[in-house]
Amino acid sequence: MDLQSELAKRTALFNTYWQRYLEIKQPMMLYEASQYLPVAGGKRIRPFLAMISCESISGESEKALPFAAGLELMHNFTLVHDDIMDHSMLRRNRPAVHVKFGESTAILSGDMLFAKSFEAVLGTAIDFSTFKQLQQDFINCIIAICEGQQLDMEFEQRKIVTEQEYLEMIHKKTGALFELSGKGGALIGGGTPEEVAALQTYGMALGLAFQIWDDYLDMSSSATTLGKDIGNDIRNGKKTLIAVHSLSQATGKQKKLIDVIFGDRDASEHDVMKIYNLFQELGSVQYAQQRALYFASQAKEAISLLKPSDAKELLIQLVEYTIHREK
Amino acid sequence: MDLQSELAKRTALFNTYWQRYLEIKQPMMLYEASQYLPVAGGKRIRPFLAMISCESISGESEKALPFAAGLELMHNFTLVHDDIMDHSMLRRNRPAVHVKFGESTAILSGDMLFAKSFEAVLGTAIDFSTFKQLQQDFINCIIAICEGQQLDMEFEQRKIVTEQEYLEMIHKKTGALFELSGKGGALIGGGTPEEVAALQTYGMALGLAFQIWDDYLDMSSSATTLGKDIGNDIRNGKKTLIAVHSLSQATGKQKKLIDVIFGDRDASEHDVMKIYNLFQELGSVQYAQQRALYFASQAKEAISLLKPSDAKELLIQLVEYTIHREK
Repeated sequence: MDLQSELAKRTALFNTYWQRYLEIKQPMMLYEASQYLPVAGGKRIRPFLAMISCESISGESEKALPFAAGLELMHNFTLVHDDIMDHSMLRRNRPAVHVKFGESTAILSGDMLFAKSFEAVLGTAIDFSTFKQLQQDFINCIIAICEGQQLDMEFEQRKIVTEQEYLEMIHKKTGALFELSGKGGALIGGGTPEEVAALQTYGMALGLAFQIWDDYLDMSSSATTLGKDIGNDIRNGKKTLIAVHSLSQATGKQKKLIDVIFGDRDASEHDVMKIYNLFQELGSVQYAQQRALYFASQAKEAISLLKPSDAKELLIQLVEYTIHREK
Repeated sequence: MDLQSELAKRTALFNTYWQRYLEIKQPMMLYEASQYLPVAGGKRIRPFLAMISCESISGESEKALPFAAGLELMHNFTLVHDDIMDHSMLRRNRPAVHVKFGESTAILSGDMLFAKSFEAVLGTAIDFSTFKQLQQDFINCIIAICEGQQLDMEFEQRKIVTEQEYLEMIHKKTGALFELSGKGGALIGGGTPEEVAALQTYGMALGLAFQIWDDYLDMSSSATTLGKDIGNDIRNGKKTLIAVHSLSQATGKQKKLIDVIFGDRDASEHDVMKIYNLFQELGSVQYAQQRALYFASQAKEAISLLKPSDAKELLIQLVEYTIHREK
């Protein structure tokens, strides 16, 4: 089993399938804006996760396709709206939707993708009782993502955020959709309650590992290649796990340094570098790496009860990939 | 049957029911923003329409409550997002959600209401096949509303809009939700295909009459009380039916006057008044009134096949109210 080729195989299947939700009609500008981000790429990890979760309990991968489309449409809708809120200018190396099409059309195109995500889920071939469960999970996930985004924004305005609060925030903002991907795939595959719970826990832990590894990657680039994003995150006072750890560990002069610079939108390059160095000195970058590894091991443990299969092997490899990727 | 007291009775029932979707949780600011507009009032015409449509074919009104909640949640979600796009500062005599809570939280709170609207519809006690129909209609309606809003914004940038284009726009932006209210109530009540189609056509025609009457009301106030909204609509080049009619009727000097002033954001009070007077001279205000009356009669005709009942009487009175209300 080679993860990349198996991912590519299922991504090709997926991309063909979900085209039906990205057709261009009138008014053309709205449909072009809705389609812009979905066709710009993306790793399709959530659809892949739903498909192999379904397979891992002997379900057919194809049966999970409509749900997988719903997940990816929902993911893209949240990206479109988040980029407006976060004033992000770039996404997938292209101008963000609101930059390219204007904010009003971007809001609407997110709403369109949102509606289409429900249309996709409605196409799943399951009985009414399972459908009701799946749909309620889908709704709960969107609500969790909204709550997570709100918390993320509120945290930027706060001086102190605990690790527990941070974990709750990324659980909602990122973990919930991974959790839904695993659980939904299992529900559609007709898994036992134990299998469904296992793949739900797997997805949640994988999502946390994924997000924390992102935080780690952003901050582990060498000082000479210090990216614009790191500077922005420090200037915005973004509460990544690394920042949260440093905030809890800093004492005396370090604390004052963070107080003054972290979250100061006008901080100089030189000051930003001081905080970056402090994060390293306090062991916070290493700490984040360890926490990502911890959640990765939790993910693997969660699916230990599944029978051996190619799909189970892929689930394990997906965990390994998550905490070894370099972008 | 007194419309106002019957409306009040069902509104009380409805308001009690849909509270469950407006509970305040953490993060509090997000939930307060989501609840802000729904509890600020509103005529609840769409829920009422769904309920009496259900009743009119001998269905129980209570059975339509979850769907009615879905309609009103969806309506409120579109208002929150529209107010951001249209830069509206006031709604229901209070600051708009984005004014009160900031734009980011307003976008999110709209998304929350959107998700909750699906949660509400999911609570409808119907078989899977009827549910699939209802859910697909619900999705199609949201898509139509997004398309309608996009067209409305695009029309502001255009010099000429035909009446047919205008009707398509308000059919999507306003008519579709009325149409869904009537049709959905009938589906839930177990109506025959003919009854469902009749109440769908009724809702659509009522929605058009409602919107055109709104256009008419906005412009029929006497010159001395000329509201701020009229000035804004003229300065924004808003394509109401009145404007569309004048654009098609104006010749020579009148055409030039419109060309210069209509859609000029910096137009003086004096110039705005010239356009206002021109709309009156060209008979456009009267024309809009006639068109509203036409769609009202279409609505009444659509339900002629329904058996006589109290609910049918209310449907007819609702049409009369729509084209006689003064606000």
